[in-house]
Amino acid sequence: MLAFVADQGKLKEAAKPMPKLRNGWALIKVRLAGVCNTDIEILRGYHGFRGTPGHEFVGEVVEVAGVSKTEKRTWIGSRVAGEINISCSAFGYRPVCSYCKRGLKTHCARRTVLGILSHDGAFAEYLSLPLENLHRVPNDVSDEAAVFVEPLAAACEILAQINIRKFRRAAVLGDGKLAQLIARVLRTKLSDVTMYGKHEEKLNLARPAKIKTQKVHGDDRDHAKLRDSYALVVEATGSPTGLRLGQEMTEPRGTLILKSTFHGAAPVETWPIVVKELSLIGSRCGPFKEAIGLLRSGNVNATPLITRTFPLEQAADAIQFAKRPGVMKILLKL
Amino acid sequence: MLAFVADQGKLKEAAKPMPKLRNGWALIKVRLAGVCNTDIEILRGYHGFRGTPGHEFVGEVVEVAGVSKTEKRTWIGSRVAGEINISCSAFGYRPVCSYCKRGLKTHCARRTVLGILSHDGAFAEYLSLPLENLHRVPNDVSDEAAVFVEPLAAACEILAQINIRKFRRAAVLGDGKLAQLIARVLRTKLSDVTMYGKHEEKLNLARPAKIKTQKVHGDDRDHAKLRDSYALVVEATGSPTGLRLGQEMTEPRGTLILKSTFHGAAPVETWPIVVKELSLIGSRCGPFKEAIGLLRSGNVNATPLITRTFPLEQAADAIQFAKRPGVMKILLKL
Repeated sequence: MLAFVADQGKLKEAAKPMPKLRNGWALIKVRLAGVCNTDIEILRGYHGFRGTPGHEFVGEVVEVAGVSKTEKRTWIGSRVAGEINISCSAFGYRPVCSYCKRGLKTHCARRTVLGILSHDGAFAEYLSLPLENLHRVPNDVSDEAAVFVEPLAAACEILAQINIRKFRRAAVLGDGKLAQLIARVLRTKLSDVTMYGKHEEKLNLARPAKIKTQKVHGDDRDHAKLRDSYALVVEATGSPTGLRLGQEMTEPRGTLILKSTFHGAAPVETWPIVVKELSLIGSRCGPFKEAIGLLRSGNVNATPLITRTFPLEQAADAIQFAKRPGVMKILLKL
Repeated sequence: MLAFVADQGKLKEAAKPMPKLRNGWALIKVRLAGVCNTDIEILRGYHGFRGTPGHEFVGEVVEVAGVSKTEKRTWIGSRVAGEINISCSAFGYRPVCSYCKRGLKTHCARRTVLGILSHDGAFAEYLSLPLENLHRVPNDVSDEAAVFVEPLAAACEILAQINIRKFRRAAVLGDGKLAQLIARVLRTKLSDVTMYGKHEEKLNLARPAKIKTQKVHGDDRDHAKLRDSYALVVEATGSPTGLRLGQEMTEPRGTLILKSTFHGAAPVETWPIVVKELSLIGSRCGPFKEAIGLLRSGNVNATPLITRTFPLEQAADAIQFAKRPGVMKILLKL
């Protein structure tokens, strides 16, 4: 099958054998895959991953192994999105690890991760995932919307981690793809959400979603200027400077959610966290059901974030294009 | 009166006028004052404070202004410890700031802080504080124990910020004065508390308090060696490297309490916070009542942490002595 692999900073085309299925796993024909900044990090070598990247997708189940005919029939032909963390139970490990035991499958000590860690991802014709990771996509959610389920679930994770009703308003730092989804998710719960970003054209995408916007320059001018402070701030700049700005903009006893997973050390003064008694909460993968619900209800409209769709054959060009300034979501279509 | 002031990296003796009292404030004759690492930071110029340092003390009320004779009589001669944050209400500001309105007086937007911010502290014969900041010290708590009320309250703050019953055990990183108090406070709630420190002689102080100890070297040898991880870790090393070790030792979805307030930026990789979905909680000043209760009940015995007591006249020598390796709490006696 056609697949792409991370190879010395670039995506390279490769002819790969079809994924083999364990019992309880499904073979999925990818319909549409999304490019995430993590994929670009992978090409930079930060995850030490040399397989097929891609963890945002919508696809169709074409084969299932080791289940009854009846169950198989319910799956074949289904359009699905898939959770990316593959945990103990999917590999049949017994006993399961202490995290799986507590239901924290996204933190499974033995996990592999679709397109990120020891498991080939969605920049290919086919991928495999355990059935327990799959979520059916309702008919009234288009492929172009469904490809956002994974990152939108990551945005929804914030609502699972904090009691949003304690807050009246929130600031989102960053205007990129994830920041845009986060602001939209928060906006479903709070009437007052402000996005702080450097790019006028990206901020413009947020306004139709009734998100307030504030242009920042990312230098010391802002630290003097941005006097406003919030009890809830989400750092999603994807940049080392975001944490400092986040600390400054979070009021005493406030909550600063960290969403950026860039690699590399940033110089950070930690005493303001102590003096202001801030809570910094790291936030990663989230609940797919909530994300699908938000897309289905129309409460979140993600498709305006699509900049361009490339055919899978042009994946190498697509990922180069995705790095250009001003570009938002890039999709690969099969 | 005799007082000491921060002057170009050293404590200098100064003859100062007695503090003037606002209505509702008390004049306190200091009996015993403690040297904290923050005092040493102040001498290094990190807080921009050029007054009299010292915020850990036990003293005797000798004058009160603007209250009835009856109330005054209840205060004069009382032995007291004092909360260090002086908030809106003590200065008669109306309306009070949004933090005071919510009862968060330690975060008052207009606060001054005893011996740290715009208010002269305890390295002097007398100091002034609002009555609302004072806590009477019971007769069965000695001066030598009572001088620990302020830092012990800071240790107790952790119990006010988290639900300790969710945890079975905890790690405390650091073996200094504050780390020792924190470990003792946690030990009142958890049967399994381990202190990780670099100094054998300091770790020895923890063992009689039934705290487990683990020697660390503070370099990369430890990151390979210290495989143990905890759902609750308290970072109290006072050093920039503590945060990294803390992140590594906190398990996924775990809580890392930050207590170190050293100044200066440390290079920090923040992606592990996100990937492990850690909660980092800054923690500063805490409840005096709980601290007094712990000293009174004998559940925390702080006096073994005293290395030496100097007369106030020798405060300059005392603070130099406090910087020496292996030295724990240094007291100034009047």
